[in-house]
This record gives sequence, C-alpha cells and structure tokens, in this order.
Amino acid sequence: MIIVMRLGAAQSELDRVTELIAALGLAAHVSKGSERTIVGVIGAPADKETLLAQFAGLDGVESVVPISRSYKLVSLEARPERSTVRIRDGIEFGGKTLAVCAGPCSVESREQLEATSVAVARAGANVLRGGAFKPRTSPYAFQGLGEEGLKYLRETADRSGLAVVTEVLDPRDVALVARYADMLQIGARNMQNFTLLREVGGARKPVLLKRGLAATIDEWLMAAEYVYVAGNHDIVLCERGIRSFDPQTRNLLDLSAVPIVQQLSHLPVIVDPSHGTGVRSLVEPMSLAAVAAGADGLIVEVHPNPAAAFSDGPQSLTLGSFAELMERLRPVAAAVGRALPEPAAAAA
Amino acid sequence: MIIVMRLGAAQSELDRVTELIAALGLAAHVSKGSERTIVGVIGAPADKETLLAQFAGLDGVESVVPISRSYKLVSLEARPERSTVRIRDGIEFGGKTLAVCAGPCSVESREQLEATSVAVARAGANVLRGGAFKPRTSPYAFQGLGEEGLKYLRETADRSGLAVVTEVLDPRDVALVARYADMLQIGARNMQNFTLLREVGGARKPVLLKRGLAATIDEWLMAAEYVYVAGNHDIVLCERGIRSFDPQTRNLLDLSAVPIVQQLSHLPVIVDPSHGTGVRSLVEPMSLAAVAAGADGLIVEVHPNPAAAFSDGPQSLTLGSFAELMERLRPVAAAVGRALPEPAAAAA
Amino acid sequence: MIIVMRLGAAQSELDRVTELIAALGLAAHVSKGSERTIVGVIGAPADKETLLAQFAGLDGVESVVPISRSYKLVSLEARPERSTVRIRDGIEFGGKTLAVCAGPCSVESREQLEATSVAVARAGANVLRGGAFKPRTSPYAFQGLGEEGLKYLRETADRSGLAVVTEVLDPRDVALVARYADMLQIGARNMQNFTLLREVGGARKPVLLKRGLAATIDEWLMAAEYVYVAGNHDIVLCERGIRSFDPQTRNLLDLSAVPIVQQLSHLPVIVDPSHGTGVRSLVEPMSLAAVAAGADGLIVEVHPNPAAAFSDGPQSLTLGSFAELMERLRPVAAAVGRALPEPAAAAA
Amino acid sequence: MIIVMRLGAAQSELDRVTELIAALGLAAHVSKGSERTIVGVIGAPADKETLLAQFAGLDGVESVVPISRSYKLVSLEARPERSTVRIRDGIEFGGKTLAVCAGPCSVESREQLEATSVAVARAGANVLRGGAFKPRTSPYAFQGLGEEGLKYLRETADRSGLAVVTEVLDPRDVALVARYADMLQIGARNMQNFTLLREVGGARKPVLLKRGLAATIDEWLMAAEYVYVAGNHDIVLCERGIRSFDPQTRNLLDLSAVPIVQQLSHLPVIVDPSHGTGVRSLVEPMSLAAVAAGADGLIVEVHPNPAAAFSDGPQSLTLGSFAELMERLRPVAAAVGRALPEPAAAAA
Repeated sequence: MIIVMRLGAAQSELDRVTELIAALGLAAHVSKGSERTIVGVIGAPADKETLLAQFAGLDGVESVVPISRSYKLVSLEARPERSTVRIRDGIEFGGKTLAVCAGPCSVESREQLEATSVAVARAGANVLRGGAFKPRTSPYAFQGLGEEGLKYLRETADRSGLAVVTEVLDPRDVALVARYADMLQIGARNMQNFTLLREVGGARKPVLLKRGLAATIDEWLMAAEYVYVAGNHDIVLCERGIRSFDPQTRNLLDLSAVPIVQQLSHLPVIVDPSHGTGVRSLVEPMSLAAVAAGADGLIVEVHPNPAAAFSDGPQSLTLGSFAELMERLRPVAAAVGRALPEPAAAAA
Repeated sequence: MIIVMRLGAAQSELDRVTELIAALGLAAHVSKGSERTIVGVIGAPADKETLLAQFAGLDGVESVVPISRSYKLVSLEARPERSTVRIRDGIEFGGKTLAVCAGPCSVESREQLEATSVAVARAGANVLRGGAFKPRTSPYAFQGLGEEGLKYLRETADRSGLAVVTEVLDPRDVALVARYADMLQIGARNMQNFTLLREVGGARKPVLLKRGLAATIDEWLMAAEYVYVAGNHDIVLCERGIRSFDPQTRNLLDLSAVPIVQQLSHLPVIVDPSHGTGVRSLVEPMSLAAVAAGADGLIVEVHPNPAAAFSDGPQSLTLGSFAELMERLRPVAAAVGRALPEPAAAAA
Repeated sequence: MIIVMRLGAAQSELDRVTELIAALGLAAHVSKGSERTIVGVIGAPADKETLLAQFAGLDGVESVVPISRSYKLVSLEARPERSTVRIRDGIEFGGKTLAVCAGPCSVESREQLEATSVAVARAGANVLRGGAFKPRTSPYAFQGLGEEGLKYLRETADRSGLAVVTEVLDPRDVALVARYADMLQIGARNMQNFTLLREVGGARKPVLLKRGLAATIDEWLMAAEYVYVAGNHDIVLCERGIRSFDPQTRNLLDLSAVPIVQQLSHLPVIVDPSHGTGVRSLVEPMSLAAVAAGADGLIVEVHPNPAAAFSDGPQSLTLGSFAELMERLRPVAAAVGRALPEPAAAAA
Repeated sequence: MIIVMRLGAAQSELDRVTELIAALGLAAHVSKGSERTIVGVIGAPADKETLLAQFAGLDGVESVVPISRSYKLVSLEARPERSTVRIRDGIEFGGKTLAVCAGPCSVESREQLEATSVAVARAGANVLRGGAFKPRTSPYAFQGLGEEGLKYLRETADRSGLAVVTEVLDPRDVALVARYADMLQIGARNMQNFTLLREVGGARKPVLLKRGLAATIDEWLMAAEYVYVAGNHDIVLCERGIRSFDPQTRNLLDLSAVPIVQQLSHLPVIVDPSHGTGVRSLVEPMSLAAVAAGADGLIVEVHPNPAAAFSDGPQSLTLGSFAELMERLRPVAAAVGRALPEPAAAAA
C-alpha cells in the first residue's frame, strides 16, 4: 500500500500517518519527492479494505494506492496452474474439450424440456441449462416452476446423458437445488449476495458464478473468493454482458474479460452470448468470438419455439440454429487448439 | 404495446403476429405506413414482460415498444397524492419536515455509537443509521457485529430519542432485524435480491430501498413494486450513486433521480451523499443540492473519528462537520419550502 | 510517479527500470516490500504522459501510478484564489452574482430571438445563448443560420442589454464568431477537438468549455489546459450531463462535478440543466440543485414556442416557466450566499 | 414515427398533435387503446430529428418513437449487398481477404518506421499505420512530426509494398494528408467533428471512421452518413473500444459491434484491439475473437521497442509478437471462411 500525501501536507499530518502505521504493527517507508511525499506501507494486514479506508480518511492524505490485490485464493499467484472443474464423469470446465451448456431460459413443461434436451445433446452440448427459480424484474412475470422444474431437468438430462446447471436464488433453497442439479448457478443479480455466496460455498456441488451487471473484474473475483474461502473450490466464472449506454443490445458482452480472468485467476471462465447480447442474430458470431478468445465453454439459450417462450424468447436459438452454431464452432475451436464435446451416447 | 414490423416483412409474418394477438384474447390494430407496418395491441395482459418477449421473438418483427409501464401500485397513476411513510411518532418521510438519518457506516462499539447518536441528535438528525450486518466486497473485511450491533443501535437511539434504520442482508434475518429497528434497509447490492424483497414485503416495518449500482429508475420502481405487492406499502426510495466511468468519485450521485421518481411514483425519496460520492468534501455540497432538488430527506455517514472507522472512513463526516452541514442546510430547506427536524427532546 | 513491479519480477527487470530512470535524468527510490517492490521516480519531466507509457511498457512492471496531475496552469495549486471571468462590463462568471445564460437552442429567426431576449432579460438573465452553427447528429437536421444567426444574436442582445455566448464548430470560423459574440462556446462533442481548442486559445474572447459526453474531470481540465497554454486564460467550464445507461434522461447531469472542479481548479464552473437532462420538467429542480451545489451560473434553453423549435424542443422552457424558475432560484441563491443578476436596464 | 399520448391526455392535446401533423403535410393514424392513445405519423419528412423534437415538446405527449432509422445511404436497406473499399491495387476492405493495418502509434523517426514496415509486411500486414498528427489528452505530450511524419510513412510504405492509413485532425490538413496517405483516418475523438467529416467527405481518398468513445452504433452510422452524403462513399468503420466503468482496461472493446454493423449497414468494419484494450497481452486474444466475429480486418499497434515508444507503449506489440499473432490468426480466419493477405512482394 502506498499513501500519497497532498502537496503542502504538514509535517504533523505526515507524522499522524506514520504513527498509525506503527500502531498497526506495520513498517513505513517515507520518500520525499520534488512534488509530493509518499509513504510505502510494508507488511501484510488481513483486512486491507478497512486499512485503505482508514488512511484515506486522514488529513493531508491525497490518495491511497493498494499494491497487492484483495483476492488471494482464486488468484493465479496462489495457484499457477489452471484449475479444471469436473461436474460429472467426463464433463469438465477448463480442459481441452469445451463445456457447452444449452437449454431454455425457463423450464416451462416436461415436453418443452424433453424436446430441447434431446436436440441439444444430439448437436453436441453436454450440459442442460434451464431455470426452475427465475429472478424477474417484474413481480408479475413468470417466476418459474420451482421443484417441479428441478425434477423435469433431472429426468430429461438423465435420459439425454447431460449434466444439469440451474440457478439458485434463495439461501434456503441451496440444499434442494443441489439435490437435483450437478452445478449451482449464481445469477448476475446475486453476484454480491454474500449470504447466498457463503451458502453455496458450503455446498458439495460446483458453482457457476455469473458476473454482475456492473461488476468490475476485481469485484467478480472477490465474489469467487467468498465461495472459495467458504470451502467450495469448484468455481467456474461466466461472463454474461455488462450494462452500457447503447440500447442496441440488452447487455454489452465483454469478451476481453475472458483473457483478463485467465491472466489473473486459475478458475475456468465461460461465456453466455444469449444474455450477453439479448439478440438472437448475435449469438452465433459472439459464440465463435468467445471460443477464439479462449473461453472454456459456452452457455446458450435454446428453445423449441422461441416465440412461445415464457422468457427471453428474442435471444433464444431454435433447435436448428443451435445445431448450425455447433457446426460453425467446430473449426474455430480446432483453430485455437480446443475441441467440442462428442455427442452424448444416450443422444445418439 | 406496439409491434413494429421490419421493412419488407412478409404478409405471412404479419399474419402470425395478429394470430398470436387474437390467441391471447387481445385486439390488434394494424397500421400500414409508407415505410413500415405497425401493429397496436389493445388490452391489458397480466404478464407484460413475457408478452413483449414473445412478440419480439417472431420473424419479421423489428421491435416491440411497451406503451404502459410495468410497475402499477407504486406509480403516481395508481395514487396521485404523495405518500408519507411514518417510522415512529413524529418521524416521517415525505412531509414538510425532512427526515435526516445519520450515523456510522458500521456499528463498531457501544461507545462509538453513543458518541455519534448524542451528537447527531443534538445537531438535528431524527434517525440513527449504522450497519450491524455489512455487505463487504471482500470476505476478509469486517462483516459487522450482528445482533450485538442491533442492540447497541436500539439502546443508544432510544436514549437520544432517535429512530433506527439498519440493513438486512439475509431473508432469514428479517424478523431479527425488525425486532430492533424502526426501518429495514435494503442495500444497493440487494435491490434485485427478489427473495429478500418478498421477505421484507411481509414484515411490519417500513423499508428503505436503495437504488442498485446499475439500476435504471424503472428497475428500481419495479423492485419497490415487489415489496408493495407483497403487502408492505411503507417504502422509501434512496438514491445512493450509480456506477460510472470517472474514478474521481466512488459512485456518481444521480440527483435527477429525485424529481424523476417524484414524477413517476407516489413514494418518498431521499439521498445518500456519502455513498453517492465516497468523498467527504463532496458530502456537504451534494446534501444542499439534494434538498434543493426536492429530496424528502438525507442519510449521511457520521463518525466520531473517521480515520479509525472500520469502513467508509473517507466519506464519513466528523461530528463537528455534520453539525455545520445541518446549519448550512437550514436556509436551503427553507428556500424550497421544507424544514429540518427539531433537535430531539432527549438530545437537548 | 510510482512504478509497481510485478510479484516475482526479476532483478534484471528492476535494473532495466532504474536504468531508464537514470537515462532520463531523474532519480529512483527503490522500496522492497513484503509482497512487491516499488520504485519512486523523483523529478518533474515535461511530458509525463509519454513517460508513464514508457515505464508501463517494460517487462516486470505491473502498473505505473502518476502522483501529480497532468494539468498545471488551470489547477488550484497553480493559483490558489478563484478566477473570475468577465465577458462584458458588469457580467462576470465566478463572482458573488451568478451568470445566467438563457435562450433558444438554435437561432431560427429574428422574431424568435427578439421575443426570447426581451423576456429572459426581464426575468433576470444576463447572457443570451443561441446556436448559429449547430452540431447535429444527422446530416439531414437543421444546421443553423450561420453568420445571419450571429447578426441576429448581436442585435437582439444589444437591444436587451445582454451579452452573447454562441458555439463555434470550425477552427476557420473562430475569427468570424469572435466578431459577433462575447463568449465562444466549445460544445461537448468538440471538447477534445484539439485543433479547435488551440484556435480559441489564440482568440481574444472568453471561452465556455462544455464537458464531453464521456470525459473524465481530469480530461476536461486537460482540455482547458490546452486553451490556457495557448494564451487564453478566460475559461469557464460547463457541466452538461454525461452518457449513462438509463434511457429515462437524454444525459445524466453530474452535479458533483461542480464541487470537484472547484476543489481542483481555479476556473469558474456553470451548469446546463437543459442538455444535462433533456427533459423540461427536470430543468427547474436541477437548476436549484446546481446553485445549491455551488455553481457559478446556469445556461438554460428557453424558447417562445418549444413545440415549434427546430431543435431540443422537449428540453426548452417557455418564456413563462423561465421567469418562474428565476423566482424560485432567488431564495436558493441567497441561502448559499449568492445573488441573481439584476434585470438589465434596457430590459426594464 | 409513433406518438404516445400520456394517460389522461385531453382531447385538445390530441387535437394539437393531429393539427401539427396535418400542417406538416403528413397523415395521422389515431388508435385509442385501453390505456393510452397512440398516433401513427405516415409520410417521410426530410428532417426527422427536428420533427421528433417538436412532437415530444407538445403537452400531453408521453414519448415519440421513431420507426425508421435516421441514416439512409449507409444502411443495408439502401444497398443490400456488402460494399468493399479498395484503397490501392489489391488491397481492399470487405472482401474474402482481411485487411491488416499495422504500425506504431506515432511516427517517431525514419528508422523506427522502416524497421516496423519491413517487419509487418513480412509478417503479412498490407497497410502501414502511424500517426503524424496526434490527438493527445495533454498539451504537453508529443503531438507528432506533422508533414515530416507523412513523408516517412509514404517512403517506407512504398519500399515495403504497403498502403498507408494515417489520422487527420484539422479540416485544413485534409488535402495535405491526402497527398501522402491512401486512407484518411478519423479518430474516435473526432467522430462527431462534423466539420472534419464534411471535409473528408469531399476528399478523393477512402476514410477509416473510428467509433467515438461513447458513441452508440446509430450515432456512428450517422457520422458515416455525413461522409457519404458529402460525396465520399469509400468508408470503413473501425470499432476501437468504448468507455466503461472497469479500470482494468483502457477501453472496453465491443466486439458485438461487428455483427451489429453488418446487420444494419453495407459498409466494411474492422477492429482495433490495441486501443480497444490498451493492454498488450489482450491484443492477441481479442484479434482472434474479432476475426471469428466476422471483422473485415484489424488495425494493430506494433513498435520495434515498445518501452521506448513516444505514445501507447503498453499496448504495442513487438515485431516478433506481431508475427506470432499473424500465425495464430491464419487458422481462425480459415475457420470462418476468410484469408490473411499474402506477404507483400517487396517484403519477401
């Protein structure tokens, strides 16, 4: 941590800074420049956030610059080789083979899910996605089928040889969702729902942690740190678009997040081009781009009849266009040294 | 709802649209312009969000324009006179007298809180703020004293004649927090934690609903609608700064939100200039501006010794600077026809 | 300038850094912490921007932190007392009396301007605004009357006892506009049109420099520095809203910019609540808030018949609502120790 | 254009709207819904921007929704097949072969440029980039070599068999720059410098139009329309990152802009991963992603010694890393049906 004193800060103000450093059991390293005095703080306090705030609050201090990052366990410095997260036999995130999650936004009926899972498994997806508990902006919008939806997910996924990822919204539902799903999704709106993060941190199922709508990458990795430090190390990050100023798309997909995360953390990272754009015709080009950028997988909304979907119809692919996407993805994945999953045996 | 067809959309595509409208029991009103065909949808479906998505997903549709807003009960159309929210005898939000909430970011000790509550009551605040459960970006940062903090809040507030507002993070803690507090705060990070919104919607205490970091005003009002529709009508909105691109401030305080909310909703709205800027020297000018813009109150961070604060020191006022702020506020409030609270009897 | 080395940077990488510092005639101050090594650079190079980039490009360097700000002449450090900018006898920005600029977005006709200037002068404005050269997003939109518009501005302002501020778009028009106007406006879209900044820096008329749509406050002050260093010291800054994510308003008015600028620079700063919101009903509350926040003046769009305006009708006040605004402003200005201009003699 | 009346708008307000429509020679189509009345406006006025503003300014009007887009000539509706822009024999944008522009941010010396152009030509670039006139945030930063820089560009490009693209800042320099360059670049800061757009619209050289830092895609296409309508139809768009909230990168590269532009306009579009991220280690993954997303080319900063660069060192590739990038690009381009340029004959 470096403390930058204001131009013309008094000696007494500087003394106050160095006294506080000493009182905290840390060492100070004062450097008087031609324009300003700076103070290096040497030592590694546990709660850096509080410390930064304390120094920034002192008179005569212009700014406090943190030198080291706040997340530790999820950082590449903590674990230099990349992690892989296995959610079932033969299905992993972070390996040579990409993970491809596909399915409807909401679970609407057994029939809808059955049709979707058979088709996406045949096209080469290896994980079924679908919401049983839905976070909706409006209290009047369809909120999901709940446990009934979880049952449909489990049954149809099993028949098609797919794993299941689905969102959990309420800390009281974590055990319930974990009974049916192979992977627990934390949605963008809950990325800083620390209660929920701690709860899935205590679960035995891997976690898919979506980036918040306005989260910096540091905040996202701090959210992952919450899960990690609570005991669950099987975390996959998911870039799903951030809020920006152009109404052209629902969200702005930040593909640079993929290599940035890979340069800062050992955790796998996938991309959601459906929420990331909100526009069906952009899903294919952004999927190709995500894989070329190095993503470890995709999560794509697919619906047998998007015009009849209960949610997110405009960004859902049809069964046919998803199969086409997989065809176009194959050579791009190969071009960057990756492979698509083999169509599941049960789906053949 | 208006459906805009693409230039050159086929008749069959238009037919599909009007058929779906009829199938939903609504009426269609087709208008062929020189450039595009538009279809007005007449009728009031319950779940507009889903409907919009369905039409937007149809072939030949360029865009779907919602005409009416999604929130109903919190809108000014639903209740043309302004609501006031009373949290204790003589303390209300939305009346001629402003509500002034003041206190530390975190409850740290009985002594810290006692010193603060005596001073802010004497300066004219009528509500004590302070976090017992803290949402912190880092899992290593101070997370609050929990129930012990709630007890300190209640005791010191009672002695100083103040009401208590404090944040609740976990739906399982709503009953506990409601036992001690006069008002339940939903923080910015939880504005779309729908589980928590429903839970406080079932509580018997008023709710202070902060705007999310990247929430549009429509989304914020929809979050209020969740609380309202669950049965709790005592809701106060709080603008606390949104995320923007300039690192100069921690957040960007959006004061235009005050008159916008007042033109759209009957709910009272207050401003948090402390989180809204993150910079102590900006708290006073932004407080004056908030009141001039028509805010129904303020919530300000005050600490007896900001440099020793466990959180948010750089944005906390000292006891002395809070008293000065109240002095400067008085004529501005009067200039726009409002008054500051009289210092509490117990504090005299 | 502080150079932060990566965790585990090699000694040879550190040597490269200190060699480059020495080669540039500066002094290095190396400090090895428990986690990272940091290097303070002592000395004051002319071109800091280039220097920062050079060090940031070296192997082993994690980040380069500038300690001093890049603007010099416009900073409060360079001139601790606040500047005032006089544009005509008795009309100044930055004094006790606020400057109030009012008038139509575009100059449309002599009659429109005459009606407006008489009314705004009577209500207490002291500067007439109006565009003769209009920057329009569409090439098909009305682009202004050009020199004819400038003539109308001069004539009607003179008759009403007002000064004139109007925008210049083309460096080749600076001399022409300066012949008619008392103050040259640089619009938001041209804030980083460095060619134009240098040209008005050579003019003998004061400059009103609007903040760019996505400019940080540092970039804005750097743009002012371009004008200042070119020889023109009569610069007034104008906050006019920045781009954000909520479609509710055209721009997001950043009122915190007022006190921030005043804490960093000696230049006066005013606010444009018309472009800053784009919504007529928000102009009054935001004007009151701007003055309460400490703004040195306002620039407001007023039109005798907003519904017939060639541009920006939805955000223009009528003549009557402008007069009401001035009435409501008076007590707020007084509450913060400021005064409104006395209605011009010629307008009485 | 659709005019949405407020809930409860008076008949007289509706009459005012329809009268204005009639007065403008357009036809009105009134539709009274269960909640609101909407008015369709039929006909194609020249200046839609003004019209929208006029109606939005009327009493009783809630909002005005434009149905058709404001740009015409650059739209895909105007010209359904994709345009290609040829800047020299054998070098085009928009064909099967990608255009690859490479070179330093600033032209610093003949030697620097010579070394760069030989290397990038050998690696397969076909256009040399480099700034002779530099837009710099600080007036104290290196502003470019001017005409001397243009000469170096021409000479070294000719020797290496490359074309030249370079930025023009001042409308008075367009003819000068056009004498040396094959393509005139309009930088991000000048995207809405309408004076400059009109001037290059009259030049005989193709234009590379960068997206502004906070420009919507509609505004960007409107800027292209300015150039097009002024007579210059050889326009290539360039996505170069927009402003966002995460300080992790200098800009946020919006790769979704590539397919969006291709779905709205016939103009070619390329990507600048150097400015688009500002971070060297992100240039390669973002280049691969851009090509996978369908970009028609790239413009990349390359410097023989980034640590000694006068500008943008941290984002410049070395000669070696550029050659590696081209190797990795080749299979990705092939995977989406594109090819890289053949290394220039002179460079072999």
